[in-house]
Amino acid sequence: MRIGVLTAGGDCPGLNAVIRSVVHRALAGHNDEVIGFEDGFKGLLEGRYRKLDLNAVSGILARGGTILGSSRLERARLRQACEETEDLSRELGLDALIPIGGEGTLTASSMLAAAGLPVVGVPKTIDNDISATDRTFGFDTAVGVATEAIDRLKTTAESHQRVMVVEVMGRHAGWIALESGMAGGAHGICLPERPFSVDRLCEMVEERFARGKKFAVVCVAEGAHPAEGQMDYAKGEIDQYGHERFAGIGNQLAGELERRLGKEAKPVILGHVQRGGVPTAYDRVLATRFGWHAVEAVHRGDFGQMTALRGTDIVMAPLADAVTELKTVPVNRMAEAESVY
Amino acid sequence: MRIGVLTAGGDCPGLNAVIRSVVHRALAGHNDEVIGFEDGFKGLLEGRYRKLDLNAVSGILARGGTILGSSRLERARLRQACEETEDLSRELGLDALIPIGGEGTLTASSMLAAAGLPVVGVPKTIDNDISATDRTFGFDTAVGVATEAIDRLKTTAESHQRVMVVEVMGRHAGWIALESGMAGGAHGICLPERPFSVDRLCEMVEERFARGKKFAVVCVAEGAHPAEGQMDYAKGEIDQYGHERFAGIGNQLAGELERRLGKEAKPVILGHVQRGGVPTAYDRVLATRFGWHAVEAVHRGDFGQMTALRGTDIVMAPLADAVTELKTVPVNRMAEAESVY
Amino acid sequence: MRIGVLTAGGDCPGLNAVIRSVVHRALAGHNDEVIGFEDGFKGLLEGRYRKLDLNAVSGILARGGTILGSSRLERARLRQACEETEDLSRELGLDALIPIGGEGTLTASSMLAAAGLPVVGVPKTIDNDISATDRTFGFDTAVGVATEAIDRLKTTAESHQRVMVVEVMGRHAGWIALESGMAGGAHGICLPERPFSVDRLCEMVEERFARGKKFAVVCVAEGAHPAEGQMDYAKGEIDQYGHERFAGIGNQLAGELERRLGKEAKPVILGHVQRGGVPTAYDRVLATRFGWHAVEAVHRGDFGQMTALRGTDIVMAPLADAVTELKTVPVNRMAEAESVY
Amino acid sequence: MRIGVLTAGGDCPGLNAVIRSVVHRALAGHNDEVIGFEDGFKGLLEGRYRKLDLNAVSGILARGGTILGSSRLERARLRQACEETEDLSRELGLDALIPIGGEGTLTASSMLAAAGLPVVGVPKTIDNDISATDRTFGFDTAVGVATEAIDRLKTTAESHQRVMVVEVMGRHAGWIALESGMAGGAHGICLPERPFSVDRLCEMVEERFARGKKFAVVCVAEGAHPAEGQMDYAKGEIDQYGHERFAGIGNQLAGELERRLGKEAKPVILGHVQRGGVPTAYDRVLATRFGWHAVEAVHRGDFGQMTALRGTDIVMAPLADAVTELKTVPVNRMAEAESVY
Repeated sequence: MRIGVLTAGGDCPGLNAVIRSVVHRALAGHNDEVIGFEDGFKGLLEGRYRKLDLNAVSGILARGGTILGSSRLERARLRQACEETEDLSRELGLDALIPIGGEGTLTASSMLAAAGLPVVGVPKTIDNDISATDRTFGFDTAVGVATEAIDRLKTTAESHQRVMVVEVMGRHAGWIALESGMAGGAHGICLPERPFSVDRLCEMVEERFARGKKFAVVCVAEGAHPAEGQMDYAKGEIDQYGHERFAGIGNQLAGELERRLGKEAKPVILGHVQRGGVPTAYDRVLATRFGWHAVEAVHRGDFGQMTALRGTDIVMAPLADAVTELKTVPVNRMAEAESVY
Repeated sequence: MRIGVLTAGGDCPGLNAVIRSVVHRALAGHNDEVIGFEDGFKGLLEGRYRKLDLNAVSGILARGGTILGSSRLERARLRQACEETEDLSRELGLDALIPIGGEGTLTASSMLAAAGLPVVGVPKTIDNDISATDRTFGFDTAVGVATEAIDRLKTTAESHQRVMVVEVMGRHAGWIALESGMAGGAHGICLPERPFSVDRLCEMVEERFARGKKFAVVCVAEGAHPAEGQMDYAKGEIDQYGHERFAGIGNQLAGELERRLGKEAKPVILGHVQRGGVPTAYDRVLATRFGWHAVEAVHRGDFGQMTALRGTDIVMAPLADAVTELKTVPVNRMAEAESVY
Repeated sequence: MRIGVLTAGGDCPGLNAVIRSVVHRALAGHNDEVIGFEDGFKGLLEGRYRKLDLNAVSGILARGGTILGSSRLERARLRQACEETEDLSRELGLDALIPIGGEGTLTASSMLAAAGLPVVGVPKTIDNDISATDRTFGFDTAVGVATEAIDRLKTTAESHQRVMVVEVMGRHAGWIALESGMAGGAHGICLPERPFSVDRLCEMVEERFARGKKFAVVCVAEGAHPAEGQMDYAKGEIDQYGHERFAGIGNQLAGELERRLGKEAKPVILGHVQRGGVPTAYDRVLATRFGWHAVEAVHRGDFGQMTALRGTDIVMAPLADAVTELKTVPVNRMAEAESVY
Repeated sequence: MRIGVLTAGGDCPGLNAVIRSVVHRALAGHNDEVIGFEDGFKGLLEGRYRKLDLNAVSGILARGGTILGSSRLERARLRQACEETEDLSRELGLDALIPIGGEGTLTASSMLAAAGLPVVGVPKTIDNDISATDRTFGFDTAVGVATEAIDRLKTTAESHQRVMVVEVMGRHAGWIALESGMAGGAHGICLPERPFSVDRLCEMVEERFARGKKFAVVCVAEGAHPAEGQMDYAKGEIDQYGHERFAGIGNQLAGELERRLGKEAKPVILGHVQRGGVPTAYDRVLATRFGWHAVEAVHRGDFGQMTALRGTDIVMAPLADAVTELKTVPVNRMAEAESVY
C-alpha cells in the first residue's frame, strides 16, 4: 500500500514520534510505501511530498517540531479538496492518508473521509481537550515544562515574600493549568471552566502570610477570567494573527493582586516554551503507539476513524464524534485540586 | 477522625506527594487529625508516630524518598499484629489507616483489613505491575530516567560504533524496559515476560551495520533471560540482602554480543538512579489524586479497598483482588514495540 | 570562633550551598560556632538569628532560595549600623560576619568593614556583573534555564515559521543574553551594552527566510534598547516596587518586528524562572568553594575582602574594589557571538 | 582559504558545537571554504570528506556525538602521514586543519604540525585533564549527569538506610568525581590521585549513622584504588577492547563496605551516560568559543597551537606543551571538598 502522512496545526511535542512510528510499522510490518506531505494539507493539495524511508525518520523520535512542516488550511480550499478527493488519491496513487492534527485538522479529516478519502486520523493537542481520547501526546510535555517553572518560581517567591502569577496555555480547557498547578503545588489555580474569585485568591494569600508562609504561587490558564464584579478585566489588543498582546490575564491578575494585597505580585507568562522541544517519555510512547495503530487501522480498512487512548488500550474512535465536543475539566477533577478558585 | 498514614517497602518517587495530599485533604476538607507512623508498619506496631500538620508536609511535594521512613515487615510480626488490630486502633485512637506500599504492603494491608483494621491502601511500585490499577506513581519517573539515559547512550554508541546494553529495573514485569525502550528508541528490548533470542538480537545489529547505522542500543530488564540454548547464563552471586551482584543479565548479554558479533558491546546498569529523586509531573498528579481519594474513601467507610487509576478516573479496588496477580506486559504491547526479542 | 552568616538581596541559586559550606568548614575544620541571621542585615540589626549545626544545613545543597531569608537594607539603617558595629559584635559575641549578596550587599559590607566589623564577603548575582570575580554562582543556572527555553522555542518557531523574541534577565549587563543566546544558537542577540539595530535584525530574518530557514529566534536582555531612530520605544509603566510592567523591550521588539517584516513575531518573557530552583552542578561547586574559602579567610584574618574566582583558583579581593565598576560584556565577547546586533 | 576539520577519539558533548562554530566563523567572517573529514584522521588519510556549509551544520549545536564520526589512529599510519604531510595538503588543497580531540589527537596533531602541516588544535576531553586549559568542554555535561545521579541516589539511600557507591569516569584524573561529589554532596570521594582509606570511609559512615543520618553516598572515580593494605582489590578481566569488565572499583568497594559495616551497600556504575547526549549551556559556549578562535588562529597563521581557556579568555597554547603533563586534581582542591578520602 501507499500511505500518506501529514502534520497540521500548531507545534506539539511528539509529532515526529508519530511520523517515525507510521514509517517503521508500515515498512517493517507491511512492506508499505510511505510518503510525507509537506506543510500539512497544503502539500497534499499541491502534490508536494517526499518518500519516507527508515533513514528519513532516523534520529527524530526525541526531536520537537515536525520534519514535515505544518500549516493551517483555509476553509475554501478544504471544501474544494472534498470535491476532488477521488482525483487526489488517484493522482497520488494514495491508498490511505494519516493526518496528524488537532480539532481543526480532525474536522477537515472527517469531511475528507465523508467525501471518500480513506483517512485514519491521529489526534494532537497539547491542551488535552479532545473528548474521544483519555489523553493526547504533547500534553504531558507541556505540563512538565509548566511544572518545572512553578518549582523554580516557588523558591524565588519565598525568598522575596512575593505572589507569583504563572500564566500557562489553555484557552478553552484548563488541563495544563490544573495538572501543572497540582504537580507544582500552586496555591491557587484558575481555569477557563469556572470564573475565578479574586476575593478568594486574596483570602488564600492572606491566610498563608498569616501562618508564616510568606509567599504564594497562582497558576492561571490563559483563557481563565474573573467572575462577575471581581476585577476590571480588559481583553488585550488583538494582533493580525488573532493573538492577544501584552495584557493577558496573567499580567492583569498580578496587577490586581498587588493593588488589593499591598504585596508584590509578579506575572510570569510561560508562552511558547510549553509547546516546543524534546517530548517526555510518556508522550513519545503515546505518539509511537498512535502511529503504530494508525497503520494497523489502515490495513483493517478502519477509515473515518482516529486513534484514541482508553485506559491502557489504543482504540479507534469515529472522527465525526471526536470533534463534536471539547473535553473540559470536570467538576470532580477541580475538587481533587482543592486550590481551584 | 484520626487517620494514620505510613509508607512501606522500597523507595518510589511520589511517596511524599501522597502523604502531603492525605494531610491536605484530611485537614482542609474534613478537619481530621493525621498522624504519620515512622518506618512503615514497624512504627505502627511500636507506636512511633508524629502528628502531621500543614507545616510538616510543606515543601515535600517534589522531594524524592519519604519523610516518614520505610521498612519491610517480617511475617511473624504481621501475623501477631493481625491478632491485635483491635488493641492497636484503640490504643492509638485510630479511626483509619492509610498504608502506602507495593505488593507486600498491600498484602499485609489486606490481612490487617480482614482482621478488622479500617484500612484504605494506596498502591506504590515503580514497576507498574499491580493489576488493579492502570498505572502506579513512580513508574513514569523511572521510565523518564531510563529514557534520558538511552538518549545519551545513543549518541555515544553512534560515535564509537558500539552496541550498548542498558539494564533497567523490572524483575518480574518488563514495563520499564518496554516503555523506556520505546521512548528511547532502543533497537532491541528484552523483557522478563518472554525469553529473548540472542540470535535475533545479533541479526538486528548486523542488519543495522549493513545499512550504515553502525551502532545499536539494547534495553534489557534485569529479570529478562535468554531463551533455551541461546547463551550460557549464570545467575550472579547473591548477597545477604538477596541482591544479585556484578554479573547480572546486562553484563552477561554485553559479553555475549561482543563475542558473537566481534563488535564492541558495553553494558550500562542503571540501577538505583531509577527509583530516587524528583518525581515527574505525571507522578506527582497521580500520587496527589491517590492521597485525596484515600481520604474520601476513609470518610465513606470504604475499607479493605485501595485507590486505583482506571482510564482518567480514580476508583476503589478491593485490596484482596489487587495482589492476586502480577500485571505483566501483554503480547499486544510487545507487538507495538516491534523491537521486543 | 563565633561566625555569623547572612544572605541579602535577590534570590540566586546556590545561596544555600554557600551557607552549608560555611557551616561544614567552620565546624569540621575549625570547631567554630556558626549562627545564621534571618532576613539579611535586618536580622543582624535586630539580633534575630539561629544556631546552624550540621542538621540545620542537611539536604539544602541543591535547594533553591535561602533557608535564612533575605531582605534589602535601607540606607539609613545601614549608616546607623556602621556607627554601632562595635556594640553589635560585642553583644552578639561575633568574631566574624560572612554576608552573601550582590552589589548592594557588598557595598554595605565594605562600609561595615571600614567601620570595624570583621567582614568577609561572598559575591552573589545571577547577572555575573561583579568585576572582581571571573564568574558568580547563580549565573550558570540562569543561563541554563534560558538556554533550555531557547532550545524549545526553536522547534516551535520552525514549525510555525515565526520569529520568537525571548527576553532574558540583565538590566545593565548582558551576560545572560550573551551566553544563553550563544548556547541556544539565537540568530540575534541584543545587549544593554550596545544599542541594537532593528534594521539589521530584520535583514538577518529576511536573509534566513530567503535561504529556506523560515524562522528566527532573537534573544534580548531586559535592559537592551534600540539604537537612536530605530524604533519607537516606550519605557513601561513602573509599579510601586520599581519594576516595569507589561510593555518591556521583548514585547515591543516583537511588535516592531511583526510590523516591519509582515511575519508573525511572538514575545516570550522568561522572567523569574531564571532565578529560582535547583542550581546547576557548576553553581553548587562554585558556591561551595566560596563558602569554604570565606571561612579560611576569617581564620587568616583577611577581613574587608571577598571571595573571587580567578581562573581555576579562589582568591580574595578587596570589598572596596569589587563594587566600583560593573563588569559588562566587552567588545571581544560580542565578536565571538557573531549574532550581537 | 580551505580549512579542514575533523573529530577524533571518544565521544564528548560539544563536538558538534565546535564544528558548527568553525563553519559559521570561517564562512561568515572570512569567506573560507570548510571541509569535514569523516571518521577522524582516517578520513584525512583516505581523502574522505564533505563540504560543510551553513545547512550542513544547521540544528547540531545541542546534539551529542559528532556529525563527522570519529576513530582512533594507529601509530604506524600516523608516522606515515607525517612523512607525507606536504602531499596531503597539496592533494586536498588544504590551507589549514583543525583537529578536535583529546590527548592522543593533540599529540598526533603536534607531530603533524612539526612535520609541516598547518594545524590548529581544539582540545576535547570530558575528563578535564589537559593541563594547558582551565577547562575543556564535555566536562561540565559529565559532571551534570553524575550530579543528577547522586541527587537521585541520596533519596533512595536515605529511604533504605543504605550506603550507595557511585562509580564515575576518570581513569587517571579525578575531576569528575571531585566536582560531581562536591555538587551532589557525596559523603566520601575517592580519586585516582590519592589512594583511599577504607577505614576512614567506614568511620565516616559509622559516624553518620550514629548521629541519625542513616545513609551515605560515596563517589568513586573508576581509576581510584585503595591504599596499601586497605582491601583486597582485583583488577577485573580486561576485554579485547582494553576495558575492565564487571569487577571495577565501584563494585568491589561496595562489597567491601557491606562486609565491613554489616550494612547494605549498593554499587551504581554510571558508565557511558556521562559522555553522551545534549551538552550543557556551559559546554556549548566553551565549544563555540574554541571553534571561533581556532578559525581566527588559522587566519593569523598561529599554527602548531591549540585553543585554551585561561580565566575568562580564550588564548593559544603550543600543542607540544599541552600534552606533556596530565592535569590532575591538586591537593588544595581536595582540601576544599573535605570528603576526599
